[in-house]
Amino acid sequence: MKAFAERLGEAVGRCGNPVLVGLDPRAGMLPEGLRPEKDASPEQVAEAYQRFCFEVIDVVAKLVPAVKPQAAFFEELGPPGMVALGQVIRHAATAGLLVIVDGKRNDIGSTAAAYAAGYLGPGDRSAWGGDALTVSPYLGNDSLTPFVDAAVERGAGLFVLVKTSNPGGGMLQDLVADGRPVYRHVAEHVERLSAERTGPSGYGPIGAVVGATYPDQLVELHEAMPHAWLLVPGYGSQGGTARDVAGGFDANGYGAIVNNSRGILFAHSRAPYDTRFGAAKWQQAVEAATRDMITALRAETPAGRLPEA
Amino acid sequence: MKAFAERLGEAVGRCGNPVLVGLDPRAGMLPEGLRPEKDASPEQVAEAYQRFCFEVIDVVAKLVPAVKPQAAFFEELGPPGMVALGQVIRHAATAGLLVIVDGKRNDIGSTAAAYAAGYLGPGDRSAWGGDALTVSPYLGNDSLTPFVDAAVERGAGLFVLVKTSNPGGGMLQDLVADGRPVYRHVAEHVERLSAERTGPSGYGPIGAVVGATYPDQLVELHEAMPHAWLLVPGYGSQGGTARDVAGGFDANGYGAIVNNSRGILFAHSRAPYDTRFGAAKWQQAVEAATRDMITALRAETPAGRLPEA
Repeated sequence: MKAFAERLGEAVGRCGNPVLVGLDPRAGMLPEGLRPEKDASPEQVAEAYQRFCFEVIDVVAKLVPAVKPQAAFFEELGPPGMVALGQVIRHAATAGLLVIVDGKRNDIGSTAAAYAAGYLGPGDRSAWGGDALTVSPYLGNDSLTPFVDAAVERGAGLFVLVKTSNPGGGMLQDLVADGRPVYRHVAEHVERLSAERTGPSGYGPIGAVVGATYPDQLVELHEAMPHAWLLVPGYGSQGGTARDVAGGFDANGYGAIVNNSRGILFAHSRAPYDTRFGAAKWQQAVEAATRDMITALRAETPAGRLPEA
Repeated sequence: MKAFAERLGEAVGRCGNPVLVGLDPRAGMLPEGLRPEKDASPEQVAEAYQRFCFEVIDVVAKLVPAVKPQAAFFEELGPPGMVALGQVIRHAATAGLLVIVDGKRNDIGSTAAAYAAGYLGPGDRSAWGGDALTVSPYLGNDSLTPFVDAAVERGAGLFVLVKTSNPGGGMLQDLVADGRPVYRHVAEHVERLSAERTGPSGYGPIGAVVGATYPDQLVELHEAMPHAWLLVPGYGSQGGTARDVAGGFDANGYGAIVNNSRGILFAHSRAPYDTRFGAAKWQQAVEAATRDMITALRAETPAGRLPEA
């Protein structure tokens, strides 16, 4: 299996955009017809999530390079939700999408190795079949090692939380130690891990999560981690704009993928898509919102900074 | 539902010991007869994990206050593993044990709320039925809020990673900012959260993970978080001893629970239990190792510092 960073670069180049569609199903926000009853069983809600995500995948597979299922919304349902998560990952992979599982997992030693073995590795290399996984750095360098080893062995990728998009993320991340914020310490470690393992594209398998809601830090962290792909959450409903994320890309338009979850999934319930499509044509709203995000990114990104499809 | 801290204190008092049995099944280490074949399917391995954990629970339920299933080993198997995890949690709760799910989860906003809703709440209050969940603090204070709210509402608990037992944990945790290490910043936040929500016992619902492998910091952190239960990993196979953990208890022997996973689960394969019991009587090895740990904790803890059963 080719290295993840190479596969991600090829997918972004082929699609001509860096849009990552977040698969965050929420029972109360599903379109009518798919929305489960208030007293639905976990099995029924899980089935609705699976059907909804399958249809979203079928719409966006021709447009974007990757999707990011959010484990929490499936886990909330207990075991039936996890069965649905497995099906959603498989469906996305079959549709040709790269799958970044958003689990923010981590642990120590052989426990970290168990997460890595379970999640990392497309196709039949792992139980879940993720091309990449988000991981938390609080447990330190040795907690990341099993993930790095598995990623290299299986052609998979990691995205380490560095600077998150939420207002309270600074509590720890912005503490200043040895003259620089904690998030810079994490970034330096990510850069070291990835720089030692780069492929022909110049990128390595260890990426970083850096929120769109902090555009200045996005520029700073892109420069601090030139060999790491950035996963940029916070676009759209969290307030990040196309201009805010422009600083995350390299000179050729690579190096960052920009996540949008609610803004695409539930476009049918917000302007201008609600009046144009409404719930009955929610799939068209998903497609229109995705295309509009691609257009916005191209418009706000310096000329030539996104690859042509 | 009575508050988690009260229920935990009562269980420790009733059992007369603070032993937390970690449920970390590993295919290659299961006793003969339960050990799956090398080419076993995930479903077969999951079934073996479930049978093994059920039997361990049946042995330890009469001895200890709580168990801690490690999500990673179940997740490694994909959806069938998660089905087994659900069954194991239910079996432990039915046996009268408190269940602390070790997932080290976290995320932001409504995503954190989804994890909290799914994991926190014994009985029929949540999909998984955990009495408590381990969570990571890297995402900051607002990421913890939904967990705190759910814990209070449902009589559940949290254990926030503060000082972990692994050698590399210091990479971030020991960085010094504003004159004290990052782990102290997290500890101060945990103490604030718990001190505002204490019950009659003097403890609140927000606890902390502090490794047995750093006995000096365990004393320091017990003093820094007098209203927080400590979950102490690292005993036994990671090198922590009964003497190392003695500083974690309050004057009445409460306030800390000490985890042991491999040292109890796989006692049949190590001295002195291998020759005394061996694989055929592995359940007796589990019981003997648990009783020996209780004895060791009592011997090394200052007189009167552990409650009498």
